[in-house]
Amino acid sequence: MDFEKYIGVVEGFPKAGISFKDISPLLASPEAFKAAIDEMAKIAKDWKPDLFIGPESRGFIFASTLAYKMGAGFVMARKKGKLPGKVCTKTYTLEYATATIELPCCAIKKGQRVVLVDDLLATGGTLKAVADLVEEMGGKVVGAMTFIELTDLKGKDMFKDLPYASLLKLTD
Amino acid sequence: MDFEKYIGVVEGFPKAGISFKDISPLLASPEAFKAAIDEMAKIAKDWKPDLFIGPESRGFIFASTLAYKMGAGFVMARKKGKLPGKVCTKTYTLEYATATIELPCCAIKKGQRVVLVDDLLATGGTLKAVADLVEEMGGKVVGAMTFIELTDLKGKDMFKDLPYASLLKLTD
Repeated sequence: MDFEKYIGVVEGFPKAGISFKDISPLLASPEAFKAAIDEMAKIAKDWKPDLFIGPESRGFIFASTLAYKMGAGFVMARKKGKLPGKVCTKTYTLEYATATIELPCCAIKKGQRVVLVDDLLATGGTLKAVADLVEEMGGKVVGAMTFIELTDLKGKDMFKDLPYASLLKLTD
Repeated sequence: MDFEKYIGVVEGFPKAGISFKDISPLLASPEAFKAAIDEMAKIAKDWKPDLFIGPESRGFIFASTLAYKMGAGFVMARKKGKLPGKVCTKTYTLEYATATIELPCCAIKKGQRVVLVDDLLATGGTLKAVADLVEEMGGKVVGAMTFIELTDLKGKDMFKDLPYASLLKLTD
């Protein structure tokens, strides 16, 4: 499927200089959303996942749907303070700031095979932080996958030893 | 399935006096998450949905997975400023404040049958605001559904003429 025609481009959102890739048209189309999930599932199958983890908020969409389709579990990776109970935390560096991502401490059992999923890969900072946190918690990260990859930003380089796949390669 | 045993209860989160219902264990269990989605789909089937709409962030999980399963589209309802492009907006009253919810203006075609989905129904303010907004945009809201219903808070009363269903009834 030609996924690009289901992606809107909004210049200057959320701030000047950013050319935002809008997945709303893809999600609203039953055929396109189904094709995206089915292709992602085909790739993830070889990784034999026990769990899919997606960062809030758009990562929830792809990761939870894949978990349902493939008979795996789903875990939310959230920004600081959003998850209740005991959380495991990782702070990482963005271009001009730091950010913190959290997972429920009880969510990952030792040795579970984890696939990370998000809608879009930019610099890869968030997914790399989640990958590191999962490994610290005893999980085994077996692959990472995004629907869109912004190839200019070379986020893929973050995952040197980790299989990474995307369905749609765009420039920034 | 006895869904209650997959729900954590965290007292005092996100603030004192709140007994937070944590769906993380449900989502992490492939069997429980699958059972929840399959039961919700069985209910939604009679409503013949074209689109599922879920409010950020946990609503995305149930609404997008149901959309995939049932061959419908999925639309994100987001807080103010999070959606790119032209958005349609509804401001509504919470206990001590107001909140604003937004949908992409292009997301709903006239006459489309829309089902609203969230993880939990409390006072029902957010889902009611989304329902009103969808109707203003020309959609037809044919049902609302949450995984958990906090029965004490009587959020169900918000949907007088609208079919509403939940899988797990709890007290606040």
